[in-house]
Amino acid sequence: MNKPLDVVIIGAGTAGLAALREVKKRTTNFAIINDGPWGTICARVGCMPSKALVEAAKAFHRRITFEEFGIHGANALAADMPAVLKRVRKLRDGFVASTLKMTEVLGKQAISGRARLLGVGRLEVNGRELHARNIIIATGSRPVVPASWRALGERILTTDTLFEQENLPTNMAVIGLGAIGVEMAQALSRLGLNVTAFNESNTIAGLHDPKVNEVATELLKQEFTLYGGEKADLAAADAGANGGVRVRSKTKEVVVDRVLVSLGRRPNIDDLGLETLGIELDTQGLPPVDPHTMQVADLPIFMTGDANKRKALLHEAADDGHIAGINATRATPVRFERRAPLAIVFSEPGIAIAGSNYESLDPGTALTGEVRFERQGRARAAQRNKGILRLYAQPVTGRLVGCEMCAPGAEHMAHLLALAIGRSLTVHDMLRLPFYHPVMEEGLRTALRDLAAQLPHCNESDLAGCEAFHAEALD
Amino acid sequence: MNKPLDVVIIGAGTAGLAALREVKKRTTNFAIINDGPWGTICARVGCMPSKALVEAAKAFHRRITFEEFGIHGANALAADMPAVLKRVRKLRDGFVASTLKMTEVLGKQAISGRARLLGVGRLEVNGRELHARNIIIATGSRPVVPASWRALGERILTTDTLFEQENLPTNMAVIGLGAIGVEMAQALSRLGLNVTAFNESNTIAGLHDPKVNEVATELLKQEFTLYGGEKADLAAADAGANGGVRVRSKTKEVVVDRVLVSLGRRPNIDDLGLETLGIELDTQGLPPVDPHTMQVADLPIFMTGDANKRKALLHEAADDGHIAGINATRATPVRFERRAPLAIVFSEPGIAIAGSNYESLDPGTALTGEVRFERQGRARAAQRNKGILRLYAQPVTGRLVGCEMCAPGAEHMAHLLALAIGRSLTVHDMLRLPFYHPVMEEGLRTALRDLAAQLPHCNESDLAGCEAFHAEALD
Repeated sequence: MNKPLDVVIIGAGTAGLAALREVKKRTTNFAIINDGPWGTICARVGCMPSKALVEAAKAFHRRITFEEFGIHGANALAADMPAVLKRVRKLRDGFVASTLKMTEVLGKQAISGRARLLGVGRLEVNGRELHARNIIIATGSRPVVPASWRALGERILTTDTLFEQENLPTNMAVIGLGAIGVEMAQALSRLGLNVTAFNESNTIAGLHDPKVNEVATELLKQEFTLYGGEKADLAAADAGANGGVRVRSKTKEVVVDRVLVSLGRRPNIDDLGLETLGIELDTQGLPPVDPHTMQVADLPIFMTGDANKRKALLHEAADDGHIAGINATRATPVRFERRAPLAIVFSEPGIAIAGSNYESLDPGTALTGEVRFERQGRARAAQRNKGILRLYAQPVTGRLVGCEMCAPGAEHMAHLLALAIGRSLTVHDMLRLPFYHPVMEEGLRTALRDLAAQLPHCNESDLAGCEAFHAEALD
Repeated sequence: MNKPLDVVIIGAGTAGLAALREVKKRTTNFAIINDGPWGTICARVGCMPSKALVEAAKAFHRRITFEEFGIHGANALAADMPAVLKRVRKLRDGFVASTLKMTEVLGKQAISGRARLLGVGRLEVNGRELHARNIIIATGSRPVVPASWRALGERILTTDTLFEQENLPTNMAVIGLGAIGVEMAQALSRLGLNVTAFNESNTIAGLHDPKVNEVATELLKQEFTLYGGEKADLAAADAGANGGVRVRSKTKEVVVDRVLVSLGRRPNIDDLGLETLGIELDTQGLPPVDPHTMQVADLPIFMTGDANKRKALLHEAADDGHIAGINATRATPVRFERRAPLAIVFSEPGIAIAGSNYESLDPGTALTGEVRFERQGRARAAQRNKGILRLYAQPVTGRLVGCEMCAPGAEHMAHLLALAIGRSLTVHDMLRLPFYHPVMEEGLRTALRDLAAQLPHCNESDLAGCEAFHAEALD
């Protein structure tokens, strides 16, 4: 039997690398095992290539404002899809390389292979048994593709394959409008493809607030065909291996060249051997994980990142790994307070939720404040005057608890509000902030003032009591 | 003698309108007097038309990234300056109209004319004497133009006349690179004009931090000719009334068609009769004003907005007016706590200062944290990877005290930091914030971590202690 390692990390994605960073500080007796290509989901097939594509699409789409701005010649612009995708891969390769630096220096401590648990403290990789005092599971996730669709072969794309395409055909369907589906459907449509999107539910992009969802849906419908409340099924449109796909929902039908399937991601836990741990697994095969310690039940095992299906977000995966890396090198785990919730979809206008979402509010008591951006001064000057922002606050105290928005500058305002919510600030506290002029954040101030009008008045000597001018030039 | 009014407001700009909003709530016995066109500096000749122009220039300039993104045809784009300026005026007219609504409803209480103080409680307008228990001075400001340059007539432009031009000539000089000079020089250059800018000092855009100033200056120099440390003088280049202008500094000389003079703004206090108040005026002719009450000495007179030369910023002018409007209707004035300092220049990258600027720091103790955006992930995906952000914090406590930046997303990060500084938050508090991935704010986090490394370690159980991956894809 091999000498036991202090820690084995299974998976070298974001969570695994964050765990590695902490483990390395505390012991040299560790190994990290990775199945498939090294490099994180984020860098290889997630955040980074998708944002490289989204930014190209945003830049190209800006041309629809050019005539209004007094800029001629926009008709001559053309998005060269092979060139767009080539740049995405070039950037991606650089981002992937940046993530490899942490494991390249490890020598034999970095093991390529598929790990399988044999029980608490035991695992197998490449036919070899390892013993580990602590195990960190950070095996990540992969796109969900219904089994019956796999026969469609290359006619089906996921984010695992989308960015590998040399080119994309004219007619595409996007199935599923969560964060990834919305970002990709809008980006591909903006880059000139004819996109038809199907979403089983009537809410998109993880939104809960019906007003924000309605605005977001209507704005996206102006750019591509969007069928909400339509569960789609796929079938080959013809016999050829490279033929089209028939997409059919209850009331809609379309034949397209390729389909991007964006139905979410599934934890990579198949054949991982979780059943050997002797603890109860849920219906999805997942063990119980404490989000404050990342510990699995009371075992010396920690489960992090997409694998634990808690929140498939990079910053949460990094925190998971950080916590697990520390706790896997201690006799007793320490408990961490998690960060305020924050979710962003990089559409345009951006979609974001910070703090509590609409669904988790007490409908009987929560106050809501709202602003629409059609008449907002800066948004008009920038030809970006579309969208809505809704804020939620406690009655009487005016403490901000959450927000949902589809608004220009959403990703920035969401950080400002995440700070406010995380610090338990009130509407009044936020109205003490200097709002420079003219900025999108003045729209946020309008929503704050909408809330302030529902709260007890503040002292006469407090600038937070400043009211709106009700003049576009000034608010 | 007329029955005395409770309040007379002199000037219907932003400060005057803010005062009016509060006065109206408390008395009907008031008047507001305005000299020249009604409508605010902001709407007529300031923030709003300048931002309409800046946004057109930004949209047009984005084409330099198009080839890299995979978008062809950018060479066919042309900025049609008459069309650009026409849109600016169209938007401006709407913004001005929005500011007129507050005074249009006042009937005879809104007086067009030039007011002159005759003493405490007495003033004259249109040859008629008014008595007022309280007077609010909100006369605004106008662009500084050296007397000897006025002979150059229409060859000289200021923001009062720039947006009125049907077209602009190819060769322009910009004299003075404060906020307005930087915004306009960059915008005009981006719209295709050949711009040569002179700045007497070597620091631009109100910056104090030499590193930030250096980056900002170098980035602007890539777009137009910028001579820093060169005080310019102007002379007619030929005898014709519509001829050019010779701009000459100690070591540089250029002949241009028109010159935009952006040397700052001067309070409108000439012939206002401040000398009749019986109090000492400073060398500029300004009386002492308490920024917490807006009161002039101990008189029932209040001085607000650009006129008091405190800070020529819209949000400060609005606060000034708010305070004065309340205090002019009270027996004893109440003191207001002012907001955290915030200044933004809408260049690209944006320039911003929140809280204490670099010059006001104690050089022996203040800590600085820094990030450059060349390798920042999101900035690279967006082809906006230029700029620098510097944060200042107290030693030991790590309390954030200020920042200066020339960075992508500056206007948004400046609001986030203004909130943090206004709430006396620490580096540690800010590192508790969720930073979504990938966003420009992760650059700000890098600067926070740079500060954190100079501060005592935080508890092992605190996510604020999460360190960087030192991988572009993840930080």
